[in-house]
Amino acid sequence: MTPSSDAARTYSRAQGDTFLEQLYAMLRIPSLSGDPAHAGDVRKMAEWLAAHMQGLGLAKVAVMETAGHPVVYGEWLGAGPDKPTVLVYGHYDVVPAALEDGWDTNPFEPVVKDGRIYARGATDDKGQLFIHVKALESYLQTSGAAPVNVKFLIEGEEEVSSPNLAPFIEAHLDLLAADVCIVSDTSMPSIEAPAITHSLRGMTYIQIDLEGPKEDLHSGLWGGAAHNPALALVEILGKLYNPDNTIAVPGFYDDVVPLTEAEREMIAKTDMSEEQYKATTGVPAMWGDKRFTIRERLAARPTLDINGMWSGWAGPGPKTIIPSKAGAKLSSRLVANQDPQTIFQKLKQYIEAITPDAVKLDIQLLTEGRPALIPFDIPEMQAAARAYKTGWGYEPVFTRGGGSIPVVADIGDMLKIPVVMMGYGLDSDGLHSPNESYSIEMFQRGIETAIVYLDELAQLPS
Amino acid sequence: MTPSSDAARTYSRAQGDTFLEQLYAMLRIPSLSGDPAHAGDVRKMAEWLAAHMQGLGLAKVAVMETAGHPVVYGEWLGAGPDKPTVLVYGHYDVVPAALEDGWDTNPFEPVVKDGRIYARGATDDKGQLFIHVKALESYLQTSGAAPVNVKFLIEGEEEVSSPNLAPFIEAHLDLLAADVCIVSDTSMPSIEAPAITHSLRGMTYIQIDLEGPKEDLHSGLWGGAAHNPALALVEILGKLYNPDNTIAVPGFYDDVVPLTEAEREMIAKTDMSEEQYKATTGVPAMWGDKRFTIRERLAARPTLDINGMWSGWAGPGPKTIIPSKAGAKLSSRLVANQDPQTIFQKLKQYIEAITPDAVKLDIQLLTEGRPALIPFDIPEMQAAARAYKTGWGYEPVFTRGGGSIPVVADIGDMLKIPVVMMGYGLDSDGLHSPNESYSIEMFQRGIETAIVYLDELAQLPS
Repeated sequence: MTPSSDAARTYSRAQGDTFLEQLYAMLRIPSLSGDPAHAGDVRKMAEWLAAHMQGLGLAKVAVMETAGHPVVYGEWLGAGPDKPTVLVYGHYDVVPAALEDGWDTNPFEPVVKDGRIYARGATDDKGQLFIHVKALESYLQTSGAAPVNVKFLIEGEEEVSSPNLAPFIEAHLDLLAADVCIVSDTSMPSIEAPAITHSLRGMTYIQIDLEGPKEDLHSGLWGGAAHNPALALVEILGKLYNPDNTIAVPGFYDDVVPLTEAEREMIAKTDMSEEQYKATTGVPAMWGDKRFTIRERLAARPTLDINGMWSGWAGPGPKTIIPSKAGAKLSSRLVANQDPQTIFQKLKQYIEAITPDAVKLDIQLLTEGRPALIPFDIPEMQAAARAYKTGWGYEPVFTRGGGSIPVVADIGDMLKIPVVMMGYGLDSDGLHSPNESYSIEMFQRGIETAIVYLDELAQLPS
Repeated sequence: MTPSSDAARTYSRAQGDTFLEQLYAMLRIPSLSGDPAHAGDVRKMAEWLAAHMQGLGLAKVAVMETAGHPVVYGEWLGAGPDKPTVLVYGHYDVVPAALEDGWDTNPFEPVVKDGRIYARGATDDKGQLFIHVKALESYLQTSGAAPVNVKFLIEGEEEVSSPNLAPFIEAHLDLLAADVCIVSDTSMPSIEAPAITHSLRGMTYIQIDLEGPKEDLHSGLWGGAAHNPALALVEILGKLYNPDNTIAVPGFYDDVVPLTEAEREMIAKTDMSEEQYKATTGVPAMWGDKRFTIRERLAARPTLDINGMWSGWAGPGPKTIIPSKAGAKLSSRLVANQDPQTIFQKLKQYIEAITPDAVKLDIQLLTEGRPALIPFDIPEMQAAARAYKTGWGYEPVFTRGGGSIPVVADIGDMLKIPVVMMGYGLDSDGLHSPNESYSIEMFQRGIETAIVYLDELAQLPS
């Protein structure tokens, strides 16, 4: 801790009510990126954010166009070239919300109750991204300078899978050049248990379509000599797994980075008991690759799941047909260093090889995303851990997330910098649900943690 | 041939136009048994038929109540107790039809075009059942008597699976007692190739429901430790078949009556080539139990087909869930002497045994029907063959039908008499489809064949 970070923290506490009023102004703008009717609100939100950053004295602020909604870029490089540069990623867009979905109050008119702000975007991600804006302000208003250079990359399309972000980064590598990237868009189980996510799973999502007879056949007149496409699908899907619940696609595990002992010890700190898993999900028994703990299976190992499957008659009562078609949606959650395209090719070749000749096969790639794995023993990660201890008040654990945030891998790969996921949300904030909320205390602790982190980064040996 | 059958045939030809006008009157009544809004029409149809039979001089005619739509019963027993009694089964109800389904003309206003009557029920089964009413009339109007006793059992619920017919028969065994039953509700490939169906497949139709997690799970957060119910379903369904395409359920084939050489020779007469099967169904390759010919697989061997299958997301695009539920509809076409209840129990026990413990299983029996196999060397069958040769003009083949008409087994089992299926329809009549039609020539040849058959039966040694 330095005097300047102490001063910034003191300022941030004193300005608490002002900061909240500013956050409420953001929350009142319904910046729904998926709804063309709200395109004007999305732009209004981008312009509000740019104007706000301009007002804080950032040297360069711009609303930059993409093929979709704009990116808000801002930079303060006053720490000079000898100091590290931090790139803050966030998103100012939100998912839809309406009173009739079950909200107790207007989702775009923030209401505070029991220390929590109720509004769409409160935790995902307006509240969390604003933490970093306020941390920089706190330095600039007290010491006139921050200990490191700061760049902001705030997009408006995260909730629609960021279709234009990777091309934007690719086109602005120099502008976005930095030493480390901070993403605050994840959560922790409780305020006493902060978490730094250092790994995310990627994805290869495919659809299989089979066609046998040219139309549904009467099963009495034709049954016994036609390969039922539903059965053909069953045969294919059944060959995707080994008896020990591992995935049978040749070469599927080839590029998986083995877990180190240190990683397994770290993961063990957040392991889940069978009882917890069963109670939360309602499954009658456990399943999976028994060589790995539950948490390892959920976050450090790849999967292949049937997400959907269909054929023939699914309505009430009997219908005696041999279906003409059958299909399935399958997705693989990938871990480092599995490549989504390579996995797609392996899946495709294997499925083609095992498809019976009595049906026609079509395979499509629906979506893909790369996994991310950032070592937690690097200085930027350890600095983040110290920042939580000092700024938040509790020591964090490093965790692997089982889900997928493709932009994390994109930023890491394209800018060649570590991405530090310092989530300031709570698992129970209800993001994407009615009555999304965010704790005022976590907002304030977040700002202080962000202030301390900039200080910690400035002190790292260059 | 006897003088009285000749006179009846001559009469039937002379009355052709009158008979057709009477048939049109039947076809104008929309007796849809599956639609409660048409319950009045169904009753009107029953009453029309009863009044018509009364007018022909039958000694006893009645509209008899069931728990559903009524049965029309009629009898003429003037041949005396030394002569055989024939029970004619038919159904006066029809499946729905509407112009907007693709009919060229009003389905309940018969139109004649190129020698065919277009109307719902023309072939299935009003036209075919009326043949027997007109055959009896032809005898009564010419000789004052028929050569055998005749009873009519005309139901109004065949198109809704005859839920009340078996109880009705069981309750009226004496009333319905007969020596042979005739059913005209099947078809032939061409007018030159009449067919007597001597076997039908039965059915055991089940639904399997699996439940794993209590609700759909996020596949990123939970994937890797939950047994996906869709995969569990795949595992179960995959174990229902052997690699040679036979059914793996223990004891499934135990009660199957082996095909005799004579039967295989008879079946070979109507075998289908691979090219024909592929061209008609559009399947890219053949499938099934290679020890049997295609026609044998279609009609003389039991099957187990997946009629429907569902789990999770089947809409457009990706959805990254582990589904909570998965299910399938499966039906087995049975052959003599497989019992539908026994097969249900075997299926149930086997599926219960192979269901993974990580999912909850529910199995329901949706519907069942017994198979029927009537030897084709018995006198009543051989008499039917002679009747076609004389009355229709072409020698028939004995065929096995792959479909199921449970009432055939019910009548045979409960009344302990052979059931002779003398179909007077054409495979291309389009029953259950828009523009159902029936050939006037086949209607007339049918009446003459029915006249000759009564004569042939009268001459069988008692």
